[in-house]
Amino acid sequence: MRAPRRAARPLRRLAGEGAARQPEPRGHAIFRIIAHITAIFGLILSGAMLVPALVDIADANRDWVVFVGSGTVTAAICSLIAAATSGERFRPTPRLGFLLVTSIWTSASFIGALPFYFASIDLGFAAAWFESMSGLTTTGATVITGLDALPRGLLMWRSLLSFLGGIGIVGMALLILPSLRVGGLALFQLESSDRSGKLLPRVNQLAAGITAIYAGMTFVCAILYYALGMSLFDAVNHAMSTLATGGFSTHDASLGFFRSGPILMVATIFMLLGALPFVLYVRLFLPRRFQRWRDPQVPLFLGITSVLILVLAALRMGLNGVPAGEALLSSTFNLVSVITTTGFAAGDYTLWSNAAIGVFFLAMFIGGCAGSTSGGVKVNRILILYQLVRADFERVIRPHSVRRLKYGHEYISQEVLQGVTIFIFLFFLSLLLGTTALSICGVDLLTAFSASLTAIGNVGPGFGPVVGPAGNFSSLPAPALAILSFLMLMGRLEIVTVLVLFSPGFWRD
Amino acid sequence: MRAPRRAARPLRRLAGEGAARQPEPRGHAIFRIIAHITAIFGLILSGAMLVPALVDIADANRDWVVFVGSGTVTAAICSLIAAATSGERFRPTPRLGFLLVTSIWTSASFIGALPFYFASIDLGFAAAWFESMSGLTTTGATVITGLDALPRGLLMWRSLLSFLGGIGIVGMALLILPSLRVGGLALFQLESSDRSGKLLPRVNQLAAGITAIYAGMTFVCAILYYALGMSLFDAVNHAMSTLATGGFSTHDASLGFFRSGPILMVATIFMLLGALPFVLYVRLFLPRRFQRWRDPQVPLFLGITSVLILVLAALRMGLNGVPAGEALLSSTFNLVSVITTTGFAAGDYTLWSNAAIGVFFLAMFIGGCAGSTSGGVKVNRILILYQLVRADFERVIRPHSVRRLKYGHEYISQEVLQGVTIFIFLFFLSLLLGTTALSICGVDLLTAFSASLTAIGNVGPGFGPVVGPAGNFSSLPAPALAILSFLMLMGRLEIVTVLVLFSPGFWRD
Repeated sequence: MRAPRRAARPLRRLAGEGAARQPEPRGHAIFRIIAHITAIFGLILSGAMLVPALVDIADANRDWVVFVGSGTVTAAICSLIAAATSGERFRPTPRLGFLLVTSIWTSASFIGALPFYFASIDLGFAAAWFESMSGLTTTGATVITGLDALPRGLLMWRSLLSFLGGIGIVGMALLILPSLRVGGLALFQLESSDRSGKLLPRVNQLAAGITAIYAGMTFVCAILYYALGMSLFDAVNHAMSTLATGGFSTHDASLGFFRSGPILMVATIFMLLGALPFVLYVRLFLPRRFQRWRDPQVPLFLGITSVLILVLAALRMGLNGVPAGEALLSSTFNLVSVITTTGFAAGDYTLWSNAAIGVFFLAMFIGGCAGSTSGGVKVNRILILYQLVRADFERVIRPHSVRRLKYGHEYISQEVLQGVTIFIFLFFLSLLLGTTALSICGVDLLTAFSASLTAIGNVGPGFGPVVGPAGNFSSLPAPALAILSFLMLMGRLEIVTVLVLFSPGFWRD
Repeated sequence: MRAPRRAARPLRRLAGEGAARQPEPRGHAIFRIIAHITAIFGLILSGAMLVPALVDIADANRDWVVFVGSGTVTAAICSLIAAATSGERFRPTPRLGFLLVTSIWTSASFIGALPFYFASIDLGFAAAWFESMSGLTTTGATVITGLDALPRGLLMWRSLLSFLGGIGIVGMALLILPSLRVGGLALFQLESSDRSGKLLPRVNQLAAGITAIYAGMTFVCAILYYALGMSLFDAVNHAMSTLATGGFSTHDASLGFFRSGPILMVATIFMLLGALPFVLYVRLFLPRRFQRWRDPQVPLFLGITSVLILVLAALRMGLNGVPAGEALLSSTFNLVSVITTTGFAAGDYTLWSNAAIGVFFLAMFIGGCAGSTSGGVKVNRILILYQLVRADFERVIRPHSVRRLKYGHEYISQEVLQGVTIFIFLFFLSLLLGTTALSICGVDLLTAFSASLTAIGNVGPGFGPVVGPAGNFSSLPAPALAILSFLMLMGRLEIVTVLVLFSPGFWRD
C-alpha cells in the first residue's frame, strides 16, 4: 500500500485512508462518530420516504400517512442523534470503518422496514425487515404476494430501496471496502493507480461520476421501458431495480407480465450494465485519469455468461424442442437475470428441465463483477482462484518453482490472495450454516439450501416450490426470514465486514 | 522440509522422498515404472478374488466361475505387464507419485468392477464400476438392490473392496500424500517428527504397525458382532466395512436388519475408531518413537461429534417426542455413521425432521480426521481454516499485526495453508460442477447435489427419495454413475492428486 500524501477530508476519511498513522478514537468517541454518520444516512432515507408519500397522496391512498409518519419520526430521531453526537473529530481506523459500514446498512434496513410494517398489508416485523433488507441489498426476494394490487406507494418504496442500495453498494465497494482490505478488494484500491498525489480530486470525481452515471443509466432505462409500452410508473420502478440488479417488480409475474420480447432485451442489456464494474463507465468519460482500470474480470464475465447462455439454449432446443431463436432469447434473458443476481423472471425457468436448473444453479454462485451492483462470488475472485489453483498445481509438480500471480497487469499481493480465499471459505461456510439454521427452523433441505444461497449471493429467487421463481418467501417462518436477512446483509458487505464484528479480537483494548 | 539422510528404499521411494535431488525418469521409463507397480497392485487384487470364489464354491453358487475367471485373466495380464516392465530403476518424483497413485486406484476400480459386471446380477459397466469404486473408496453407496438375496461371493467381494480400500487409504495418506504436498497434508510428513536419521525403520514400522492394527481391530469388531448375534458371515463382512468407514452391508436394511442396540453401539465405537488418525494407535504401542504425534484434530473431532449428537438428540426429543435414552442412542449411531462418512443406516433418519436433516447435512461436510479411513473436508483442515480466519480478522482489524499459525505445537507453513485453502476451494468447485453435470444428465437438483456431496465426501447415502438412506443409486443414468465414480475417486485422493493430471503444466517437458 502506498501511503496517501494529503490531509484527509470526509470522503477519504470515510474510506479509512491513513488509518495506520493516527491514533484510534476511543470508547465513547467511536460510538458518537458512528451514531452521527449513521443518523445522517437515516436522514437521507427518511427524506426518500417523501417520494412514496407523494405517490400515495396522488392515488388518494391512506398509506401516505404511514410514509409521512415513518419519515417524520425517523427524521426527528436521526436529527436528535446527529445533533447530540456532532463535533467529534473524525479519525478513521479499520475498526471504525467496519462498525460504520455495518451500522449504516443495519440501521437503514430497519428504517426501510417501517413503512412495510405499519402499512395496511399485515406483515410481521421479521417479514418487513426481510423485504427492506432484500431491497437495500438489491437481492429482490419478496414476502409480499399480490404485487399487482399493492398500493403504489409501497411499490415505489421497494424500488427506491433497491435504487439507493445499488448506489450505496457501488460507492462502498469502490471507496470504502478496498481500504478495509476484505475479500481481496484491496486490489481495487484507488491510490495504486495514481502516483501524482492528486488522490482527493480523483475520489470525489469518481464518486460524483458514478452517481451521475448510475442515475443517468437508470433514466435511459426507464425511457426505453416506457417507449416499449410500460406505464410511466412501471417503467420508473423497473428501471430502478434493473440497474441495481435488484429484481423487485410491480407485478407478481415480474417482467413476464408485459409479454414483450423487446422489454426483456432492454432489461438484459441494463442488467448486464449493472453487473459490470462502474469504474468502467467513468473511464469512458475520463480516459486519462483512470488509465489503469483495465480490468480482466470484464471479458471473463462476458465470456462465462455467453458460454452458459449457449449451453442453456442448446438444452432448451434439445430437451424442450424450442426453436433456435426463441431458445436463445429466453436463455439470454433468464441466464443474465440470474448471473447478474437480479432475479427478474418471465415464466418459471425452473420448469424447463433438470439440466437447465443445473446451469442456473452454477450461475447463481458465479455472480457479476466486483465494483458493480451484482452479488455472488464474483468473477474477479474466480479469476484469482483460477490462478491460485494453477500456481498450486505447479508447486506440487515442481516443488521448487516460484510463480507470482497477476491480475491483469498487476501482481497480486499475498494479502489479496488471503482475502480471496478467506472470502470463499466464509461464503461456503455461511451457506452451510445458513442451510442448517433454516433446516432447524423446519424448512426442507432444498428450500433451505437454495434460499441461503440466493440470500448470500443477493440473487432473489431460489429453487423448489417455496422459494423458486414462481414461489414466494412469505410462507417461511419468522426466524427463517431473520436468518435470511442476516445472510443478505453478509453477502452484500462481503461477509468478512460483518463477521469480523463477532470476533473477540475486534473488541479487545 | 528437512532432507532425509539415507539412501532410498522402496517404501520411501514410493513416498517420493528425495524427489528434488534426483533427475526425473523420462518418457517410456516413467510409464514402464507406473505400469509395473500398478500391475503388482492388480495382482494383489486378483489374488483377493479367491476369497469370494471360495465362498461361492462353498455355497455351490455358479458365480465362483466369475471370480476365478476375472482373477485368472487379471492375474495373467498383470503378470505379463509386470514382467514386461520390470528392471526399470526407480527414481521417485512428484509427477511419478501423482501418476502412480491415480493409476493404481483407477486400475483397481476397473479390476474390482469385473466380478460385478460378469456376475449374474445384470449390472451395466458404469454401474459395476460405480459399485467397485464405492467399495475401494470406502464410500458405501450402492446400485445393487436385493442385497439379502445376493450370492454371498458378491457380498464378500464388496466388503473385501472396502477392507482393502481402507488400508490403502490410510497407507497412502500417511506414506505418500504428505510427500506430494497436496491438501495441506505435508503437515503430517514423517521426518518432521524425528531428527535421528532413523527414518526408514520408522516408516516400515509404521506401515507394518498400521496394517496389523487395522486387521486386528477388524478382527475384534467381527468377534463382537458375532458375539452379539450376527452370523459369522455377516459379522466378518460388516466388520470389514465398519473399520473402513465404508458402509456396505449384506442387507438392504443395513444394520437396521439386526434390530439390536448393542450391535449399533459396537458399530458406533468402531466407526469412530476408523475415523481417528491411525498413527494414534501405533503411538499407543510405540510411545517413544512417535512422541510428536500429538494431534489436535482428535479432540476437535470428538468435540464436534459430541455437540452434534446432543443437538440431534434434543431435536429428536423436542420434535419427535422420543424419550431421552432412545433419542441419544439413535442420534449417536446415525450421526457417527454420517460424520465418519460410513453410511450405515438403521431406519431412514431423513424422516426424523427437516431440522435433523440440516444437522446430518452439516456433518456430511465435516468428515473425520486426516490419516484415517474417513472422508469429508476433515477436521484437521477445519482447524487450520479456523486459525486462518482468525488471523485474517486480526489482519483487517490491525493491518500491521503479524501472527504465525500453529497446528498443535507446530507452526503451519505457507505451503500447508495454501494446500488447505486450495483443497477447500476445489472441494466446493467439484461439488458444484458435479451437481451441474448430474443435472445435465437429467437428475433433479436435490438428488444431484446430495449425490455429488456424498460421493466427493465418500459418505454413502445422500438426501431425497432417490439417493437417501432408504433409496438406491441404481435408478441414476449411466453417465451420472460415471460422474459420481469420478467424484468418489477425487474425494478419496484429496482432489488435487487427480486434478493435477489434467493441468497442461503436468505434461510439459
